[in-house]
Amino acid sequence: MSIELHGPDFSRHELIPAIAQCAATGDVLMMAWMNRESYDETLRTGKVCYYSRSRKKLWRKGEESGNVQVLRGIYFDCDGDTILLKVDQLGGAACHEGYKSCFFRRVEPASGTVTIEGDRVFDPAEVYGKK
Amino acid sequence: MSIELHGPDFSRHELIPAIAQCAATGDVLMMAWMNRESYDETLRTGKVCYYSRSRKKLWRKGEESGNVQVLRGIYFDCDGDTILLKVDQLGGAACHEGYKSCFFRRVEPASGTVTIEGDRVFDPAEVYGKK
Repeated sequence: MSIELHGPDFSRHELIPAIAQCAATGDVLMMAWMNRESYDETLRTGKVCYYSRSRKKLWRKGEESGNVQVLRGIYFDCDGDTILLKVDQLGGAACHEGYKSCFFRRVEPASGTVTIEGDRVFDPAEVYGKK
Repeated sequence: MSIELHGPDFSRHELIPAIAQCAATGDVLMMAWMNRESYDETLRTGKVCYYSRSRKKLWRKGEESGNVQVLRGIYFDCDGDTILLKVDQLGGAACHEGYKSCFFRRVEPASGTVTIEGDRVFDPAEVYGKK
């Protein structure tokens, strides 16, 4: 039942979801995508590099904001089709909206009401400029 | 820059990745997929229901093994295209291979060596039968 896997299986999926988790607190920070090239670069440099589906190119997390993710551990799942990254999030915020985690919107199951959990670490307008 | 979102945006993506995290320990347990129907059922029942891409139908996690995931919190990300579930994992193991987390394989960046982290909670052959 167990399969011998030596890494994420990019032969079956060109893009694989990669979950970034804060190594210190366990908070899930974000989910983005990796292709083989971004995965290899991440291993080689120790800084997390994703593949941007919208921009269709490598996305070195933090290249614009300075909020680099330093790799502390890298795992893949039983099917070889998801990656888990344990990281130190420089700047304290992974989200482009200035929150520590991209998952700052919580849904109340009964009512469907959405509430914001967590404080803003930075003001996006200051970091990225007003566009 | 902030977008008003009332939930995951199934109008843009029929299937959305859903990350399950242990509510008590913060361990990332697994990643699977949800469609609108499985998301609605999860909110309604308080037990996590995914959509199985291979079986092309709703996948009520634990329906075979008994290892149900009880919903403790549900979040979605800034783009509305990823879900985060905080759960109580009944039976102690989310992975069909008997591990607590599906992410039990760790890669050593320099060498590419894969090591197993974490103990087996159950023997898959006993839970699922020998197939």
